[in-house]
Amino acid sequence: MIQRFSFGHPIPTESVVQTLPLCEDPVPFLTALPGGWQYKMQENCVVYGLGEMPRGLNKRGWHYVTNNTDESRHTEDKLSYYGAHNFLLIRNGAECFGLFVDFPGKVHYDIGYTRHDTLTIRTEEPDYELYLLSGGDENALCREFRALIGRSYIPPKWAFGLAQSRFGYKTEADIRTVAQQYKTHDLPLDMICMDIDYMQGYADFTVNKERFPDLKQLADDLKAEGIRLVPIIDAGVRIDEKDETCQEGLAKDYFCKKADGTPFVAAVWPGKAYFADFLRPEVREWFGGRYKVLTDLGIEGFWNDMNEPALFYSPDRLKAFFDSMAEMSKMPNIEQEDFFEKVVGGVMGLMNSPEDYASFYHEVNGQRIRHDRVHNLYGGSMTRAAGEALAKERPDKRTLLYSRSSFIGSHRYGGIWLGDNNSSWGQLLANIQMMPNVQMCGFLYTGADLCGFGYDTTPDLALRWLEFGILTPLMRNHSSSGTRAQEYYQFEDELPAIRKMLQLRYALLPYLYSEFMKAALENGSYFRPLAFDYPGDPDAREVQDQLLLGEGLMAAPVYTQNAHGRMVYLPESMKLLRLRAADDYDEEILPAGHHYVRCGLDEVLLFIRPGHLVPVASPADNTAQLDDTKLNLWSYLPDGAHASYRMYTDDGVTTDYEKPEHWRTLTL
Amino acid sequence: MIQRFSFGHPIPTESVVQTLPLCEDPVPFLTALPGGWQYKMQENCVVYGLGEMPRGLNKRGWHYVTNNTDESRHTEDKLSYYGAHNFLLIRNGAECFGLFVDFPGKVHYDIGYTRHDTLTIRTEEPDYELYLLSGGDENALCREFRALIGRSYIPPKWAFGLAQSRFGYKTEADIRTVAQQYKTHDLPLDMICMDIDYMQGYADFTVNKERFPDLKQLADDLKAEGIRLVPIIDAGVRIDEKDETCQEGLAKDYFCKKADGTPFVAAVWPGKAYFADFLRPEVREWFGGRYKVLTDLGIEGFWNDMNEPALFYSPDRLKAFFDSMAEMSKMPNIEQEDFFEKVVGGVMGLMNSPEDYASFYHEVNGQRIRHDRVHNLYGGSMTRAAGEALAKERPDKRTLLYSRSSFIGSHRYGGIWLGDNNSSWGQLLANIQMMPNVQMCGFLYTGADLCGFGYDTTPDLALRWLEFGILTPLMRNHSSSGTRAQEYYQFEDELPAIRKMLQLRYALLPYLYSEFMKAALENGSYFRPLAFDYPGDPDAREVQDQLLLGEGLMAAPVYTQNAHGRMVYLPESMKLLRLRAADDYDEEILPAGHHYVRCGLDEVLLFIRPGHLVPVASPADNTAQLDDTKLNLWSYLPDGAHASYRMYTDDGVTTDYEKPEHWRTLTL
Repeated sequence: MIQRFSFGHPIPTESVVQTLPLCEDPVPFLTALPGGWQYKMQENCVVYGLGEMPRGLNKRGWHYVTNNTDESRHTEDKLSYYGAHNFLLIRNGAECFGLFVDFPGKVHYDIGYTRHDTLTIRTEEPDYELYLLSGGDENALCREFRALIGRSYIPPKWAFGLAQSRFGYKTEADIRTVAQQYKTHDLPLDMICMDIDYMQGYADFTVNKERFPDLKQLADDLKAEGIRLVPIIDAGVRIDEKDETCQEGLAKDYFCKKADGTPFVAAVWPGKAYFADFLRPEVREWFGGRYKVLTDLGIEGFWNDMNEPALFYSPDRLKAFFDSMAEMSKMPNIEQEDFFEKVVGGVMGLMNSPEDYASFYHEVNGQRIRHDRVHNLYGGSMTRAAGEALAKERPDKRTLLYSRSSFIGSHRYGGIWLGDNNSSWGQLLANIQMMPNVQMCGFLYTGADLCGFGYDTTPDLALRWLEFGILTPLMRNHSSSGTRAQEYYQFEDELPAIRKMLQLRYALLPYLYSEFMKAALENGSYFRPLAFDYPGDPDAREVQDQLLLGEGLMAAPVYTQNAHGRMVYLPESMKLLRLRAADDYDEEILPAGHHYVRCGLDEVLLFIRPGHLVPVASPADNTAQLDDTKLNLWSYLPDGAHASYRMYTDDGVTTDYEKPEHWRTLTL
Repeated sequence: MIQRFSFGHPIPTESVVQTLPLCEDPVPFLTALPGGWQYKMQENCVVYGLGEMPRGLNKRGWHYVTNNTDESRHTEDKLSYYGAHNFLLIRNGAECFGLFVDFPGKVHYDIGYTRHDTLTIRTEEPDYELYLLSGGDENALCREFRALIGRSYIPPKWAFGLAQSRFGYKTEADIRTVAQQYKTHDLPLDMICMDIDYMQGYADFTVNKERFPDLKQLADDLKAEGIRLVPIIDAGVRIDEKDETCQEGLAKDYFCKKADGTPFVAAVWPGKAYFADFLRPEVREWFGGRYKVLTDLGIEGFWNDMNEPALFYSPDRLKAFFDSMAEMSKMPNIEQEDFFEKVVGGVMGLMNSPEDYASFYHEVNGQRIRHDRVHNLYGGSMTRAAGEALAKERPDKRTLLYSRSSFIGSHRYGGIWLGDNNSSWGQLLANIQMMPNVQMCGFLYTGADLCGFGYDTTPDLALRWLEFGILTPLMRNHSSSGTRAQEYYQFEDELPAIRKMLQLRYALLPYLYSEFMKAALENGSYFRPLAFDYPGDPDAREVQDQLLLGEGLMAAPVYTQNAHGRMVYLPESMKLLRLRAADDYDEEILPAGHHYVRCGLDEVLLFIRPGHLVPVASPADNTAQLDDTKLNLWSYLPDGAHASYRMYTDDGVTTDYEKPEHWRTLTL
């Protein structure tokens, strides 16, 4: 059951696709507070949700603000990341319910931070809709919520292959080298992502002709090898009178404006930039249409970045900082408070400043609305712009699309990656724990930057992270400039193990793709917490580092440096697979309970649930070469039971997802 | 066996107290590389040591530089913290050995970072001594190393009580409020630390007379309640012609100098400051003598801070930054690379700049030596200055002393705390994992800032961290200004559990103090990894989150948010105590193996090893009131065996540690 409540005069977000009648009953579960809501949590209460947010699977014990933020430091003190996903799923003893706060500005959550037993929710303004979901268990409520917000984006099947990326591939030769090295080292690869260096002056929808003299030829050559190029598109439009996007946007009056009616300007990668008003349908149509510059060159996938939007500084604030420094330089002695506040704080405060976000405006249904009031819609609306336009331009074809910033609603147009993480064991665990929370908010196509984006990775972290990454829908190795090189062929000693793990990913694709398509087409789950399927098991509720994956598998990743095993909790008997490769593994039936399970650096732990089958293909160099007609069936069938598996198989590129003939039934 | 090797012309560090003959044999275990050493690690090789350093108990899988650094961001990418502890203990299959690099500058360690199976060590200069310890197991080698470096500092017994601290207690009234609140809430307390706000203009050895009109009276009043004041002393000496320390230091020519012979100046908390040349014995004697300003007011304990030394900026570099900003302000457009490098990087590079550390000099045995070559000696030498002078001034009395920066050798003069950590679950685990590595380097009196220094803490983190903190020799709750108030009386809902935990600490003191004194007087260990006592057990070697504590206890702290239990590995049968208070606990004999053990938020897990006794007193309001004549004896005596316990008991303040009558034997 979903109850819809409305307060004040909400700005429409188009997050939901069902129009439910407004409920006049009192809001269940929650107690009204001035400006918000309160809920009392028992000691064993678990709070899931919030999608892409700091901290663990269970969000209890911290406070959060949905406020899309370019936040590269993923430390425990953070309150916000790149996405605004205002869905909570609460299990409190026998009580289980979900809530969705449909509001485009900041929502403040205190989930046992101020008081350990108290949850409070507060929107920045009194105008919002509130959806309460109840009457089912965790799985039922998630399914209901997904139906409310509409079908999740489905990428082409090749998007389930490996993507290699790095902020630092500067030339066509760099890109060709990556492709060549993967081939030389016999490592499968489906995509190479192109970060901002392919552009001319970091201007969207341009190609640097010196460094990429013939992008179409490059794209064609690579596609012949089974490799797609996936370029980045940034939110900020370079201010450049010779740039077509800039010219058109100005001519059509499509950029966000300051109070005085002039276009808002802030610096990002191209230097000073304008920002398209993605909240207007006509602007979305125009900007989305610009992607054609690249699809005409054979590009079939994009990632949208910097679309919170990130702002390095506004010219006005930078000038004020320079003035302040000029003042300070005249002082004979500087108080330390001034040094930290004005010098250090002055610089740090230039970036993503709340004052800048409050200094420009959108047009929503003809009304001028200040950006900070609808801030969280921005990034997702950019993705919507691309998604809608590409669907129109290539009506029968899927386009790969994923975004850094997002809101619930934009999951219908593209996936997300988990932003600019770093090469640390803590971020590997964060990747594991964030997946179910992100996916329950609709973002099925997702994954983290494997090996880590910032910091220097290590060979063992690269391998352990890959061992989880082979299970995530988006499997991308991406890193920042200046960090240690981390293409998988860089790890000489670990190369045999890495190769086998990548091959295992491709071998698992019949299962992973089928489970993804079930989740997308039937509002089911791909990753979910263990407790979802065992709601009555208090030990299962404690588990924060194992994930159910589709209907038949459980993953128990090793995420601790120097560990050669880990503890695993089984709510029921399962079959352990300790895999070194798709065709090289130990198997053992383990009874329900807590187990210490050994797992060497070159091994990954998967568990098959009783009565389930897992179809496995032979490894392939890329998704195109994958043969899903010759399958092995892994199984755990106690007492000679039989089982069947619904497998999804299609061409992976057309959009006729729903055809019944895409389903096959495998039995054993 | 210890073998001493010498290379080049080492600068003496006085880290060791034994003069061993130089060994002419080839260096065992290690392979010489140009400029360093190499060692091959098997997959199960464990590397302990490096003391206060980032990452886990096992240092494998990262690279490190001993380079004392004021590093408040304790993230996984860091290479250095506040201390230089160049001791490694390596267990590689049947091979077990220790090595100590006696060098005052940077030492670079690559412990499986570049290649997972390779350890390399490289000193910044070719002049150093190298000690190789072999011929015993982990415990034997640690004992041998401790004998080599000399007896660890022993604090007064009251230093094992609770210390409450905060950067932000600005007045006498603030301090009295803390004492009063602890009393009102019936929470034991032994110390209140005073951060820099008690000083006049942040000048060492001054007291702000407005805010602390009569510090002696305050100290006396609190001491009557069993509470000691523990003020901070910073390394930088405020430049102030009216300040006595500044005047004297200038007159005696005791400050570090630049190449041109003028005193080196850098800004820290007091603004511009000079830096005493602690490497000179006469300067140590003078600076140490200055503490008398405060001991004359009844102060019996100090913490030395900012003594890496931290440098906010040097005036020359700040001027260069202002000039650079003035240049940039004239540019019509700023390249993003310039923005990040010159504006953001310009500010961040002001602090603790390598160029500044290379711009001043020490006098060592009459020779001028550039600071960066002996950088790691600086902080520990400040502690040595205080320790030596206070020992002379109060020859029969112990003075509490602990430091932020340190090197091996300064462990003879004071303890250390683990620097400016933050309120995060990751830092609680870091606290657990750092303890044995720090203690094996001689720093027995140590602990982390409980609840965390930076960031905002949470009620559950405060309680869980306390549940480990009750076991650490230094038990201090400390926080930065601007963070959530975290005195233990601030957590209303958790107060009953916190009170019981604090009382449990005091009840455990007969055991904890005895084990500390054994460790100090007999070069034994207080905390040590599980594997040390079970070297043949491969599962014990895997454990990185349980610690043996003295001879009879094992701790298995819960460090995961929202966990109500944890996995525990027992190499042999032990008695589990699940304690809510000293007189309220469950007990259960558990067999050897892996166990999931429940542990509520108000509970702590201790395990008694077979054949051991643990003396427990009744709770007290402070250490002075502790009655160790009436003891309970916890025990695990399988099969009706008998056991005895050597308990250490003395007045806790005089320095006649070695008297035989301090030992009692308890039997059961």
